[in-house]
Amino acid sequence: MPALYNVAVIGVGLVGKEFISQLLALPQSPFRLVSITSSKKSYFSSNGISSNWKQLLEASNAKPDFPKLLTDLLVQTPRGQPVRAVVVDNTASESVAAFYPEFLKAEIHVITPNKKGWSGELSLWQKITLATKEGESKMLGEATVGAGLPIIGTLKNLVATGDKIIKIEGVLSGTMSYIFNEFSTPNGTGPSFSSVVRTAKEQGYTEPHPADDLSGADVARKLTILSRHIQELLPLLPHGYTSVEVSSLVPKELEDLTSGDEFVSRLPDFDSHFENLRSDAAKDRQVLRFVGIIDVPSKTIKASLEKYPVNHPFATSLGGSDNIIAFHTHRYQRPLIVQGAGAGAAVTAAGVLGDLLSLV
Amino acid sequence: MPALYNVAVIGVGLVGKEFISQLLALPQSPFRLVSITSSKKSYFSSNGISSNWKQLLEASNAKPDFPKLLTDLLVQTPRGQPVRAVVVDNTASESVAAFYPEFLKAEIHVITPNKKGWSGELSLWQKITLATKEGESKMLGEATVGAGLPIIGTLKNLVATGDKIIKIEGVLSGTMSYIFNEFSTPNGTGPSFSSVVRTAKEQGYTEPHPADDLSGADVARKLTILSRHIQELLPLLPHGYTSVEVSSLVPKELEDLTSGDEFVSRLPDFDSHFENLRSDAAKDRQVLRFVGIIDVPSKTIKASLEKYPVNHPFATSLGGSDNIIAFHTHRYQRPLIVQGAGAGAAVTAAGVLGDLLSLV
Ligand SMILES: NC(=O)c1ccc[n+]([C@@H]2O[C@H](COP(=O)([O-])OP(=O)(O)OC[C@H]3O[C@@H](n4cnc5c(N)ncnc54)[C@H](OP(=O)(O)O)[C@@H]3O)[C@@H](O)[C@H]2O)c1
Ligand SMILES: NC(=O)c1ccc[n+]([C@@H]2O[C@H](COP(=O)([O-])OP(=O)(O)OC[C@H]3O[C@@H](n4cnc5c(N)ncnc54)[C@H](OP(=O)(O)O)[C@@H]3O)[C@@H](O)[C@H]2O)c1
Repeated sequence: MPALYNVAVIGVGLVGKEFISQLLALPQSPFRLVSITSSKKSYFSSNGISSNWKQLLEASNAKPDFPKLLTDLLVQTPRGQPVRAVVVDNTASESVAAFYPEFLKAEIHVITPNKKGWSGELSLWQKITLATKEGESKMLGEATVGAGLPIIGTLKNLVATGDKIIKIEGVLSGTMSYIFNEFSTPNGTGPSFSSVVRTAKEQGYTEPHPADDLSGADVARKLTILSRHIQELLPLLPHGYTSVEVSSLVPKELEDLTSGDEFVSRLPDFDSHFENLRSDAAKDRQVLRFVGIIDVPSKTIKASLEKYPVNHPFATSLGGSDNIIAFHTHRYQRPLIVQGAGAGAAVTAAGVLGDLLSLV
Repeated sequence: MPALYNVAVIGVGLVGKEFISQLLALPQSPFRLVSITSSKKSYFSSNGISSNWKQLLEASNAKPDFPKLLTDLLVQTPRGQPVRAVVVDNTASESVAAFYPEFLKAEIHVITPNKKGWSGELSLWQKITLATKEGESKMLGEATVGAGLPIIGTLKNLVATGDKIIKIEGVLSGTMSYIFNEFSTPNGTGPSFSSVVRTAKEQGYTEPHPADDLSGADVARKLTILSRHIQELLPLLPHGYTSVEVSSLVPKELEDLTSGDEFVSRLPDFDSHFENLRSDAAKDRQVLRFVGIIDVPSKTIKASLEKYPVNHPFATSLGGSDNIIAFHTHRYQRPLIVQGAGAGAAVTAAGVLGDLLSLV
């Protein structure tokens, strides 16, 4: 008899809403949506929730309460029955991530696009790993890197089949991709750096405060996640993404600005710096790309601005806010490359749903 | 209790040998290799077979006998026990493929890099599909397209999560990739077509008879496999790959040659034809690539020589015998692209092993 899954969704923002609608649109699904939680409210129904979930959540008086959610899920999934429970975390919350080990120990699977769980302290990663063993449960997070692109699945498969990773290199931030695809084209000229950042912010490509993208922290989180899925010897990153070597693009003088608008208005002071980098690269027929690199032989994990020849895939074939990632391995001497949109609610939700479907 | 799998391998050529060695190298594997079959001999041991399999197969007097293999596997996997059986077909044989439905109906999974089962008559595809339902078994063939690259898995995932395929386009033959990467570079000049084919043959990139590659049949088989995994309305291809629209590169006059060597020695007569194509393309700053295309709106499935701008990913980022495939979908308006080695024993065997691991 095929298993049934009770699904609890936490977080109903851009990705969460889209995930629910993709889930409810599945034909003949073995999944029953039993709970929905936002930052303010929570709703649980053992009979299953359908397209009127917004009204039900709105009308609910229950507050978010993860220990109670855990208990409610367990009541609905008695041991020995072919019913399993899954929590889908569509928040960006640290506190939800901190609770993963409790779910996992209780035989509840966790699926998420939230980078916080896997890219934080090593101790949390270890607790999560231990909890999946104790609970015979799974934690899946394909959408934490490259949204719906097959990146973590590909990496896990390379490792599981006995391949050896030599180097992983990629444009892992959609925002950084957009900024440098616009700023640094093969002909070496173009708009100023600050104007590109301004446009990116106006079009909603950046966080409200662009320094949150330009700091490289998002790339460092993704590198942390990738490196933890590699078996070869690499730095342990005891403090997660903050242990990664990052060359931030935020000018020292602007580091303490709390306003995104002020940041953008003062960025032109630093245009000449970026202009020099661009023209130096162009002299060697190269372009600038902000990349993440994991190099196994030299045990390097770093996020930084690098130069690539104008005919390199990172230079020629990227557009929009595409991600691209190249896996160099013992078996793939010429790299295995995956490319495409690395952000957006629809593709991210599909990445999450793909993980859910892989449980069946 | 985690399931155990009895694995029977058919075919111990380049891929088969490598697959067995990767399988035996897995740490803590739930797989027991119980049978090995070549075109001449067969060996079965319910206790499991290890690295001395070559001697055991050599010393065996048993002939290949699939009905007997099926019975032997079933004896070792009694109903109600958490033991399942898997047949891994590493041959290129039509007759092995014709037997898949029997295995599948008997609850035995089938995993293979052999294109014959999925790219032949529609009736065989339908029998296979029905048999997997009847037997609650799976047929997996990631390595039938692009070897170890995540292509079929990616396509299945797009479809399963509700995305709509608009167009799939790619360089799907490693041999065709090599030939046109060498013949048609962005500068529009280079060696003659026949000399590139000759070199490719000498280096083992082509089949013994290069017309088997230049006919486009391999690309047509892969297109058949991909199209059968798409839910959108497409031509049904009643006779599989022979129903695909293919523009063969084999000159009419050489179609009946049975000798690969004679074929290569007479190919120079047709160099001017290919030279004209190359220079015409170069005039528009384009290169030639032999691609497979599935276009859903126009219901087209075709394999042909096409032109691409010199800065297109198919022109710039390919090398060696790389495959590249671009999925254009409703959610991926800019395509999701996968690229890398699409042939070679190690990556193909890893693709097969990846499918096996996905059963767990
Ligand atoms: N959007 C993308 O393109 C993309 C791509 C890859 C990965 N991701 C990841 O996907 C996740 C969701 O992204 P998003 O764009 O959907 O963000 P979002 O629109 O800001 O939505 C976040 C949701 O989480 C809820 N939430 C926050 N803290 C919570 C808590 N402690 N308990 C319960 N609910 C809480 C919020 O509730 P309220 O509605 O009550 O505020 C909101 O519904 C993030 O981790 C993000 O990094 C997103
Ligand atoms: N090599 C690649 O790079 C690659 C890439 C993608 C897909 N594939 C596919 O992988 C499969 C294997 O390729 P390969 O390169 O390993 O071929 P191969 O070296 O020619 O090996 C074929 C094997 O199949 C055995 N065989 C043939 N007919 C059989 C039958 N009726 N019953 C039992 N065994 C039979 C042969 O036995 P004997 O040893 O007794 O002759 C041989 O061991 C093919 O379908 C190929 O298209 C290969």
